[in-house]
Formats: sequence, C-alpha cells, structure tokens
Amino acid sequence: MTGYPEGMLTDRNPLPEGLPARLRDQLAFVLEVDRLKTVLRQSPLAAADRRENDAEHSWHLALMVLVLAEHADEPIDVGHTVRLVVVHDLVEIYAGDTPLFGAGGGHGKHERERAAAERLFGLLPGDQARQLRGLWDEFEARETPEARFAKAVDGLQPMLLNWLAEGGTWRTPGVTGDVVRARKAVVGEGSAALWAAARALIDEGERRGWMPPG
Amino acid sequence: MTGYPEGMLTDRNPLPEGLPARLRDQLAFVLEVDRLKTVLRQSPLAAADRRENDAEHSWHLALMVLVLAEHADEPIDVGHTVRLVVVHDLVEIYAGDTPLFGAGGGHGKHERERAAAERLFGLLPGDQARQLRGLWDEFEARETPEARFAKAVDGLQPMLLNWLAEGGTWRTPGVTGDVVRARKAVVGEGSAALWAAARALIDEGERRGWMPPG
Repeated sequence: MTGYPEGMLTDRNPLPEGLPARLRDQLAFVLEVDRLKTVLRQSPLAAADRRENDAEHSWHLALMVLVLAEHADEPIDVGHTVRLVVVHDLVEIYAGDTPLFGAGGGHGKHERERAAAERLFGLLPGDQARQLRGLWDEFEARETPEARFAKAVDGLQPMLLNWLAEGGTWRTPGVTGDVVRARKAVVGEGSAALWAAARALIDEGERRGWMPPG
Repeated sequence: MTGYPEGMLTDRNPLPEGLPARLRDQLAFVLEVDRLKTVLRQSPLAAADRRENDAEHSWHLALMVLVLAEHADEPIDVGHTVRLVVVHDLVEIYAGDTPLFGAGGGHGKHERERAAAERLFGLLPGDQARQLRGLWDEFEARETPEARFAKAVDGLQPMLLNWLAEGGTWRTPGVTGDVVRARKAVVGEGSAALWAAARALIDEGERRGWMPPG
C-alpha cells in the first residue's frame, strides 16, 4: 500500500481567503495534481537518459490521439478521447504506478486505485468530482469507442519508447515476445492498424534479441 | 538562435520498413516530440524541487481547461481548447522556451518559433501538418474564445506554481507587482474570474515581499 501524503500541497501555503469558495477548491485541486509530475513510470524517455513521469506520459498520449485518431476502428470524438487520456493516470498520484511487467505488480491495484480516486476527485466540487470520476471509470471500462482507442494509445506509447531504447522494459527478466503480445492485446481492441504496427515492433524486437522469442 | 538537433530521434533506430508510409511518418513524429519533455521552463514544481518541463506544463494546462472551463467569459468548446493547449508549446522543441521575465528574452522569438514550426510540423503528412500548424496559429492569434481561454490558463498556471514556491519567478530582479500585472493581462482577456484570482495572488505576493510593489 502506497502511503498517502499528509494533507494537500496547498496546506503549505493556503490560497488567499478572499477567493470564491468553489474557485478556491478548484485551484487547490489544480495544484494538488502537480504531484503527477513526480510519479515515475518504467519507460525510458527517447530524448533523455531518465524514466518518464505520468504527467509527461499523459501529455504524450493526448498528442498521439490528435495525430493517430484516423486509425481508430470505430468513429471517435477526438476531444472526448483527449479528455480521457488527460485524466487516465490521475489516481496514481495517491496509488502509484503499477508496472506492466513485474511480479505481482497488479495485486490489489484496483482497490488501491479506487480508494485513491475517492480521495483525489473528492477534493473537487461535487459535480466535477462526479464528472472526472466518470471519465476515469469510462477509460477503465473500455466500453466506449473513445475509451478503447485511448487504451490502445496507452498500450502503444511505451512500446515506441522501448523501440528507441532498444528494448527498454521488454528486457525485464521473464518477459518474452508472447508475454508482450498478450499484455498488449488491448491495442488491438481499439485499432487494427496500430496493433499491426505494435506487432511489427515486437516481432523485430524478438529478432534483434531484445527479448526471448515465444 | 537555438541550434537545431541534427536529424530525428528515429534516425538512431529507424522504425520497421514494413509499416505503411503514412503511419510510419506519424509514429516518427510521435517519437520526435518526446523532446518536449526535455525543454525546461523557469517555473518551479509545487510537488518536487526542480523546474517544470514543457510536456508537464502542457498536460497541466489540459487538466486546468477541464476543471476551469466554466470560468471562460465566452462559451467554449472544451475539447477544442484542450487540443490547443496540447500543441501550444510544441515549437519549443526546436525554438526553446522564452522566459516571460528576463532581459530581451522575447527578441526574435516569433521568427525562431515560426521556423521551428515549419520544420516540426513538416515532419507530418501534409494534411496533418496544416491541421496542427492551424491549432498553433489559432492559439497564438487569440482571436477565438477557445484561444483566449487557453492563453488565460497558460498565463495563470505558472502563477499558481509561484504561489506555492513563495515567489518563484516573481523574485526575478527587476520584476515588480505592476510588471507582473502588465505581462499577465492576457488572463483577463479570457476570464474575468481567473483574472480576479490572479490579481489576488499578485496583491498578496506583493504584501508578503516576494516582489517589490508598484
């Protein structure tokens, strides 16, 4: 269980009392989510020698949705899909990132993230708490075309970073080509074209010895 | 003049030849913009002891648009506004960040950024190059309600970070309360409510001695 930080970032220096209460709560939330910039993922950046954080990753997905939307298997509302990816990792502020390749990484993940969602979205005015929670639930459920495409892009992005790193997290002990194919099948639920590209990356990674075949 | 990097990130490890040409260009662009995560801004993070980068900043603006859209003075298309902030700093990949408070920082900025836009967006298929260039031009021109609100949020975000840093870039030599008010007037062009909040932060920052009054 990831320990929750005590209090909010704005406790250090509360926003001016004179602000309207609703706006003050919104701005305190906006500052609280600055923490997403400190949640590290396993993925190595392509442009620098360090790991990626969740805020950078979320921005990257938003940009990918704009550029790759034409490859969605079903028609999607691009603006709505961008909203989904902007909020999709927010709960990791309190729940932490769960690596895709790692022993027992997923254990208790859903409970941890649901508790984190209660706490984080609960900082917002009620109507907005429900709205953002709704976006996160939609993303996780993969029942709308927008959520399926958002998940596809979320699955593809770290594969592109692995490609430039000549393996990256694919070199995790125990990971084989088939393990990657199985865990990344989510890409194919949103886009046949992106899934074909993803499989080409995996196939070639196997050939180059970045992970064992099969 | 910021020196351009030689070639693209994918030159290091070209994407598989078998991919359809259009998708291959799109994915190479998606990898190239990883560089945005290495463009440092002046703003200090609220959640960690380091400066913010452009990718983190762009994500933060997207989230702010979702939470603060009700404060726009004119009706806005939220999805379109999020698109604007996702692409608004892309040209800094090649042009670099230009600090708001700094001697001669803005000199040659527009020429530098236009040249960077030609190079960066030119990596995309023609129709998409025009589309993303259009979003950037729209943001810069501030002629649509969406662009005015995006600019307002872009002006407000570093002020919130400065608030938690007890001054941040407001402590730059030569910067006074009135200098900040003048440079941040753009917030008021998109939202009277956010501009009132911004002025409350500046007023209180002056009172606390983070920058000289007047």
